[in-house]
Amino acid sequence: MFGVTILGNNSALPAYDRHPTAQVVTLNEQLFLIDCGEGTQMQLNKFKVRRGRINHIFISHLHGDHYFGLPGLITTMGLMGRDNELHLYAPAMLMPIIQMQLDVSGSVLPYKLHFHPLGDDELLVDNSKFSVHSFRVYHRIDCWGFIIREKKKPRRIDKEKAVAYEIPLAYYERLKNGDDYEKRSGEVIKNEWVTIPNAPGKSYAYCADTVFTPSIAEKVKDVSMLYHETTYLKKLSDRAAERFHSTTEQAGQLATLANAGKLLIGHFSSKYEVLDEFLSETCEVFPNTQLALEGVTYLVG
Amino acid sequence: MFGVTILGNNSALPAYDRHPTAQVVTLNEQLFLIDCGEGTQMQLNKFKVRRGRINHIFISHLHGDHYFGLPGLITTMGLMGRDNELHLYAPAMLMPIIQMQLDVSGSVLPYKLHFHPLGDDELLVDNSKFSVHSFRVYHRIDCWGFIIREKKKPRRIDKEKAVAYEIPLAYYERLKNGDDYEKRSGEVIKNEWVTIPNAPGKSYAYCADTVFTPSIAEKVKDVSMLYHETTYLKKLSDRAAERFHSTTEQAGQLATLANAGKLLIGHFSSKYEVLDEFLSETCEVFPNTQLALEGVTYLVG
Repeated sequence: MFGVTILGNNSALPAYDRHPTAQVVTLNEQLFLIDCGEGTQMQLNKFKVRRGRINHIFISHLHGDHYFGLPGLITTMGLMGRDNELHLYAPAMLMPIIQMQLDVSGSVLPYKLHFHPLGDDELLVDNSKFSVHSFRVYHRIDCWGFIIREKKKPRRIDKEKAVAYEIPLAYYERLKNGDDYEKRSGEVIKNEWVTIPNAPGKSYAYCADTVFTPSIAEKVKDVSMLYHETTYLKKLSDRAAERFHSTTEQAGQLATLANAGKLLIGHFSSKYEVLDEFLSETCEVFPNTQLALEGVTYLVG
Repeated sequence: MFGVTILGNNSALPAYDRHPTAQVVTLNEQLFLIDCGEGTQMQLNKFKVRRGRINHIFISHLHGDHYFGLPGLITTMGLMGRDNELHLYAPAMLMPIIQMQLDVSGSVLPYKLHFHPLGDDELLVDNSKFSVHSFRVYHRIDCWGFIIREKKKPRRIDKEKAVAYEIPLAYYERLKNGDDYEKRSGEVIKNEWVTIPNAPGKSYAYCADTVFTPSIAEKVKDVSMLYHETTYLKKLSDRAAERFHSTTEQAGQLATLANAGKLLIGHFSSKYEVLDEFLSETCEVFPNTQLALEGVTYLVG
């Protein structure tokens, strides 16, 4: 499973029972938390997301609606007896704020918190199953997006053919990685004769808060699912530009430029109680769009 | 109206849809916010409390469950266009934390925030209608309670008698304040002959987080309503002492010692899903007790 569960989809402040920004990305057994607005720990409880399985937290920027829930979450993790390490990727100034809050409360976390200050186009996490990169987006203060890429899965073995070509069992792991097999006779068995390609790895890009910036499309080219903010409907494009936010139409344009598989939109202004027009306006530009609704999980693939 | 509306009644972390500590005291047209755990601004929305009428916020201590909702609340007040002054009474170290959070977000509040660092037995607010004092309580870190006293209301004039004694209308205001009237003849009309005493001012004391400390009773003597924490049931008195918290029985004892009119208990540990025993155990010691339940307003008088 590779999916995104929305915990908060509102901009700036809570309204109409919509919460400030937070989302959980599930990639097989891994949970990644992206942004952590106030109330995120309550939303995790409400939607029965297992807090203990979050090992990586990414904070896009230091406007409060994207991180005011973090001190509560990391404190609660400690009170609940967490002992596995937690990695926090965030703008550099977040660490002294959190440290000050721990200091004044006389608290020491019972687990190791690794802080990783963000930079542009950095490889933040890399292992055999997935990678996470940061990329710069353009807001009133320093702000980053994140792209999570599932690694290409190994090829599957076509057992009947592998037996027919007399390939020893011990070599099957190398076949999965794409290697050819050379017999003692010198005959080469091409990998593609005995294996089946697996589904390509999928990818999810989170564009955080940003003014419409076509060059971001290059950073998220061909992504399976793109999250882009739509703080305003298209007729408020002037206000969007002024406040370094985007409109429905612009999110659709960016998804088109990026050749995204699908588009998820959120970060709705509290001006709007009803969200229907966000969907219809964006779909006019990029039909495969969905509204980010709290409690709903959107499949990346 | 002098009442207390509970916004959060849980200790340490949110659980069972109970929230970390926050309460709003309504005294006529004034709203006072006492403590501000994460999610307080959502609770204010939920219970339709008018944020804009909060001009005084009191923070008892710097454990996160008592203030992590504050940065969000003061930011939201700014985003909603607040321009009247806000007074914040809190441990001194809260101000640099908030300032740092404002600085990193590039935010300037559009209203004046007056910060008042707490000290012991200080008169924090004093005007013609009410006063607020701090008093020291005893927790793992510096911690204060607050007592809000409605000023004694002026006496009411017994019109028939005032006319009978031929007291001029222009003197009625002085009668209300308790003055006697001296006629030209030298005859003195005693105030109590022509006025009726009004109800005495009521008072509310909030004891924050504290280990059971009998001397606190002197600070809150004869209070109309006392809020005292009951983190644990009585059989966990050892754990309560160890963690500088109190039990049901101890809260009842303190209310008895203080000769409180009534007792409100809260700050329940997440160990307990059901709260019935908190009430029954406390009532055994102090019968006029109520559980602090979220969304409920308890009258002080």
